[in-house]
Amino acid sequence: MRALSFDGTTLRCIGDHPPPVVGEGEALVRMRLAGICSTDLQILAGYMGFTGVPGHEFVGEVVDGPGPLTGRRVVGEINYACGRCPTCQRGLGRHCPHRRVMGILAADGAFAEYLAVPVANLHLMPDAVPDEAAVFAEPLAAAFSILEQVSLDPGDDVVVLGDGKLGLLCAQVLAGTGAAVTLVGKHAENLALVADRGVATALLGAWAPDGGAGCVVDATGSTAGLGLAMAAVRPRGTLVLKSTVAEDHDLSLAPLVINELTVVGSRCGLFPPALAALEGEAVAVTPLIDSTFPLAAGVDALAHAARPGVRKVLIAGQ
Amino acid sequence: MRALSFDGTTLRCIGDHPPPVVGEGEALVRMRLAGICSTDLQILAGYMGFTGVPGHEFVGEVVDGPGPLTGRRVVGEINYACGRCPTCQRGLGRHCPHRRVMGILAADGAFAEYLAVPVANLHLMPDAVPDEAAVFAEPLAAAFSILEQVSLDPGDDVVVLGDGKLGLLCAQVLAGTGAAVTLVGKHAENLALVADRGVATALLGAWAPDGGAGCVVDATGSTAGLGLAMAAVRPRGTLVLKSTVAEDHDLSLAPLVINELTVVGSRCGLFPPALAALEGEAVAVTPLIDSTFPLAAGVDALAHAARPGVRKVLIAGQ
Repeated sequence: MRALSFDGTTLRCIGDHPPPVVGEGEALVRMRLAGICSTDLQILAGYMGFTGVPGHEFVGEVVDGPGPLTGRRVVGEINYACGRCPTCQRGLGRHCPHRRVMGILAADGAFAEYLAVPVANLHLMPDAVPDEAAVFAEPLAAAFSILEQVSLDPGDDVVVLGDGKLGLLCAQVLAGTGAAVTLVGKHAENLALVADRGVATALLGAWAPDGGAGCVVDATGSTAGLGLAMAAVRPRGTLVLKSTVAEDHDLSLAPLVINELTVVGSRCGLFPPALAALEGEAVAVTPLIDSTFPLAAGVDALAHAARPGVRKVLIAGQ
Repeated sequence: MRALSFDGTTLRCIGDHPPPVVGEGEALVRMRLAGICSTDLQILAGYMGFTGVPGHEFVGEVVDGPGPLTGRRVVGEINYACGRCPTCQRGLGRHCPHRRVMGILAADGAFAEYLAVPVANLHLMPDAVPDEAAVFAEPLAAAFSILEQVSLDPGDDVVVLGDGKLGLLCAQVLAGTGAAVTLVGKHAENLALVADRGVATALLGAWAPDGGAGCVVDATGSTAGLGLAMAAVRPRGTLVLKSTVAEDHDLSLAPLVINELTVVGSRCGLFPPALAALEGEAVAVTPLIDSTFPLAAGVDALAHAARPGVRKVLIAGQ
């Protein structure tokens, strides 16, 4: 099969890559559309020491799996948990210490014609949702995970820092609670995408934190985000750290103690709220698409996605 | 009156310091016993740019106040809130942006024969509690504030890092919930103080974090505490930052996101739970006392308190 493969140094498109070995409890899925995430770009820079087929955002079709699933369109949660350890028993399989992670840790991912995914991780995609929206299930679930961890009330004053792909999704998801959400970013054209979705917007250069927000989400992907977030939140307020930053932070955390802030690290989310939002068109995802490349041009797709300001780049399986 | 006074450079004991000006809504209190906190030592090093009479832990006697209070023994909360702003209206007077803070910010404190305190900040001290225990009301309330912010269940696995004054109080308060608390510190003689109070103890050098604690409290007062705390807590667990560290942190905060931790900054607490614990002898505080100096030797008392490993140093008003 055709697949993108990373050997730890170089990403290559391989025409005769061996097909995935389908393990017990797994299904074979034909990839229809995959999305490129900032994490994929970090992996190509050495993050997680991953080698193999990257990619963890996809919509596909089951070609070999349990009877009722075969032929159905699916998306998949990315953490393959052992299901037996104490962490899994607590319902935290996403944090299973023995987990493999699709295209990130010890499991080949979605930038290929076919991938093998545990059946337990698959979710049927409602027919009404086109592939171009369905492929956003994983990042949208990551945005919804904030609501799993933080309770917001209508009228709460929320600031989302960062108008990249994740910030655009987070701002819309949080606005759906009735909270008064302001998205702050550097790109007027990105901010414009959510201006008609109940989200106030502000250009970073024209915005000053007022220390009054009840909740601030840092989706900047930069070490600068945390200091700005601490300046924007009110005492006893909540900061949500939504993007993994590999570099060290170098700042005083005294404001966390003095203002008794709560900081919530937030990563992957459960899929059902995201699927419901896609089906109900509660969140606009397709305007985030920059371009779609065929799998044969997948190496170019990742190079394009790495350019500043580029939004979601997709890879088509067929 | 006699008072310790800090001019921004030097702490002096002044025999003829002017008595406090008692403002509207305030009471005049004769100090019986005051405690020296690490924050006082930081103030002498320039923290908060404070000048005046330091000291914010005390038990005293009302000599001029509303009738029913006069002659009564009291302790006092340290944040003097405006009572009118939106923060105060939300019940967060401890975070009032217009607040003065006893001996820390724009208000003379307790290292003096007399101090003026807003009546709203005073709490009657039950007769059964001797002065030597009553003077711990403020730091004990700070330890109890953790339970205001974090819910613990019996059997929860809790680690407290740091066996200084605050760590010793926090470990006992948390053990009172039925949680399985381990206090980790550098001083065997400090650890021994809580060994018979339902707290397991471990010397730092002989202890390795196992990433399994549901809650970790950093009371080290050091920038090294956070990294150790992140290594000790389990995914989706809670870190409580209990001590203000003025220096910058320099570390990767990626584990906060990857393990979806919740970090709670925690500072001052409400007094009622601390007063009940003192009255019921639920927490052993007097073993923490190192020594008591007369006010006339207050400068020596602060110098002594600054020595490594010294526990609570008290200053007697009479």
